[in-house]
Amino acid sequence: MKAVGIVVEYNPFHNGHAYHLQQAKAVAQADIVIAVMSGTFLQRGEPAMVDKWTRTKMALAGGVDIVIELPYVYSTAAATDFAKGAIFLLSAINCHAFAFGSENGAIAPFLNTFQLIDTHRSDYNMLIKESLQTGASYPKSLHYAYTQLSQKFPADYIDLSQPNNILGFHYIEAAAHLKSAIQPLTIPRIAAGYHEPVQQGATIASATGIRKALATTNELQHIQNVLPHTSFDYLMDWSTQHGHFASWEQFWPLLQFTLLRHTSHELTRYMEVTEGIEHALIKAAKTSNSFNDFMEKVKSKRYTWTRIQRMLTHIYTGYTKEQAHHLDKPSYIRLLGMSAVGQAYLGQYKKQIELPLISRVAAIKNDMLAVDIHAAEIYNISVEQQVKHNRLPKDYQTPPIRM
Amino acid sequence: MKAVGIVVEYNPFHNGHAYHLQQAKAVAQADIVIAVMSGTFLQRGEPAMVDKWTRTKMALAGGVDIVIELPYVYSTAAATDFAKGAIFLLSAINCHAFAFGSENGAIAPFLNTFQLIDTHRSDYNMLIKESLQTGASYPKSLHYAYTQLSQKFPADYIDLSQPNNILGFHYIEAAAHLKSAIQPLTIPRIAAGYHEPVQQGATIASATGIRKALATTNELQHIQNVLPHTSFDYLMDWSTQHGHFASWEQFWPLLQFTLLRHTSHELTRYMEVTEGIEHALIKAAKTSNSFNDFMEKVKSKRYTWTRIQRMLTHIYTGYTKEQAHHLDKPSYIRLLGMSAVGQAYLGQYKKQIELPLISRVAAIKNDMLAVDIHAAEIYNISVEQQVKHNRLPKDYQTPPIRM
Repeated sequence: MKAVGIVVEYNPFHNGHAYHLQQAKAVAQADIVIAVMSGTFLQRGEPAMVDKWTRTKMALAGGVDIVIELPYVYSTAAATDFAKGAIFLLSAINCHAFAFGSENGAIAPFLNTFQLIDTHRSDYNMLIKESLQTGASYPKSLHYAYTQLSQKFPADYIDLSQPNNILGFHYIEAAAHLKSAIQPLTIPRIAAGYHEPVQQGATIASATGIRKALATTNELQHIQNVLPHTSFDYLMDWSTQHGHFASWEQFWPLLQFTLLRHTSHELTRYMEVTEGIEHALIKAAKTSNSFNDFMEKVKSKRYTWTRIQRMLTHIYTGYTKEQAHHLDKPSYIRLLGMSAVGQAYLGQYKKQIELPLISRVAAIKNDMLAVDIHAAEIYNISVEQQVKHNRLPKDYQTPPIRM
Repeated sequence: MKAVGIVVEYNPFHNGHAYHLQQAKAVAQADIVIAVMSGTFLQRGEPAMVDKWTRTKMALAGGVDIVIELPYVYSTAAATDFAKGAIFLLSAINCHAFAFGSENGAIAPFLNTFQLIDTHRSDYNMLIKESLQTGASYPKSLHYAYTQLSQKFPADYIDLSQPNNILGFHYIEAAAHLKSAIQPLTIPRIAAGYHEPVQQGATIASATGIRKALATTNELQHIQNVLPHTSFDYLMDWSTQHGHFASWEQFWPLLQFTLLRHTSHELTRYMEVTEGIEHALIKAAKTSNSFNDFMEKVKSKRYTWTRIQRMLTHIYTGYTKEQAHHLDKPSYIRLLGMSAVGQAYLGQYKKQIELPLISRVAAIKNDMLAVDIHAAEIYNISVEQQVKHNRLPKDYQTPPIRM
């Protein structure tokens, strides 16, 4: 059996994801699909709309064979580290290839871009630094450096201003640095741009568009068209049980309290809080009535929305620089769920898989895993406190879902 | 003009307090009464039922001439430090005497007890240590040591198991260690034991009894008999505005969230969190639905309810051991309120007062004061978040109340 790996958040799992995983299987000529999925907090620095277990169920119902967890340490990191963690785990679980959706859609230009940057790494870094010093954001500075380099050595490159191209680039970079034999593949993204609202009559929409529709309207019919019915049902179950989907807006009272109980000096202990932004965070928290209100006050040319959200995630979960400093590569693979075929695969290839597969985490002592369990517990209490009753689901007691 | 000092929490100000302050004036032959009052968090390690400004109004309406703030550092500390801060400030503001209510009611036995312990300090400490090692609580161990010593050197001593006698002893000890000329006086406490419920027809009740009556019943008539009408009105105003009085039970969702977002290792950074209790705190927080439920799980022979509440206060406000380590004696006196007579006194004796009097704190940079403002802001947001609107009163902008 051949396995292809994909890197996902499934926030929520929609028709575009179903298409992507079928394409991944096809282009990789694979028998099964293994998804490495972020847990409770995501790469844009925000809580997932529903917990990892519900998203695992959607994934399995949608055709994924095995879901493993991308640890918090990577799932909430900037693209380089995010990709490093994801590709490391897909490699470790014996995938022969990984496939990512991209705006570009062909793999050769990705490899050209990687070659260009890898060959001229020090020039590239110097150009980035140069741009950062003008006060530009990190993404803007990357773009500047890349434009300079690619004009100097013309070839068929990818457009590195497209979000999925950027991630793809980092996957390829991660695979190269890991010296992994895992083969990179890409699939063109279809329809729906990243930030576009859900279109009437469409069957494909972006997750961002779907979340917006769920947050602001009750037009469930439109949403129903762009989700597998299983995803739709799981979302409706969650909504019935909790009354809302998780979001920073929902968590705002707890986030505001958390920000304000810190002195600005104490805030600097958390991951990514640097350069004096702690003062701005506290000042804005004192005068804001909502998360959006707060973000509008804090964002600036220098700090992207995503970067600020990542800081907030680390403050909220209490993830410190000191902790991060002591964490190395994952030393385990945490199973979140698997189909019957997925189970058969794991039974067959157990010996080739380099890392221990963890089903029940209660018995394991591991610092990186402890961060995941902690983040999940904070997520759970945040979801529960909004509905004013206090059943705290225990992440460490939840076994992988078998479907 | 002669000023007598008193040490108060006024949680809330009741008829017993009114009696005490009149007696204090009488026994000290003083013209005015100066109260050093705890701010938002109190010595038993809990939030005050109403904020310091409302309690200041009750105090002034009830006959106090000047109210100054006992900084958080002292107001939430064990008796020794609590007394040290209070007597230091009363001394600094030029009181010739201080008067405290006690079960004993006469000053000579207090002085005898202080002499006994001060003369045999090392034996006393050894006896305490001996008892602590058997697993007894700190108060129990003090009692043991004291009984041993006083039996060896018989004289007219106070009963050191009575809560107000204990505080009185520490006031006298603090005055002696400060080498202050301030004269200690005591007034017998009348009626109502510390923990007794409010009695029908009574005009005197303990603050504990009053808080219980307000929390559990709506029998405002009984309460009305034991409070000056001004206190009653201020409490009713607060209740109308906020819908509840501040308490750990009210703050429980935020306290629970705060406990759970820490790892046990991180909890040990806070003041008074020692000896492995951090594990018990997190374990209990995960499974408790209310503050009382939580406390029943955490309290033990070793840790008194009060000691645990003090730890929780420090965790809640984020007051760390490192912060405490860097704080020395108060270098200012913060005015919370004054009557016309109080103002006249301050005008007349300004030059004799050793420390700067602070009315507007916004302009002052001081680490000890910053802790107070921080604690008040956390208190305010906790009160406000319960009522689901987000006006955050700003402690640093509130001037002293003049009545």
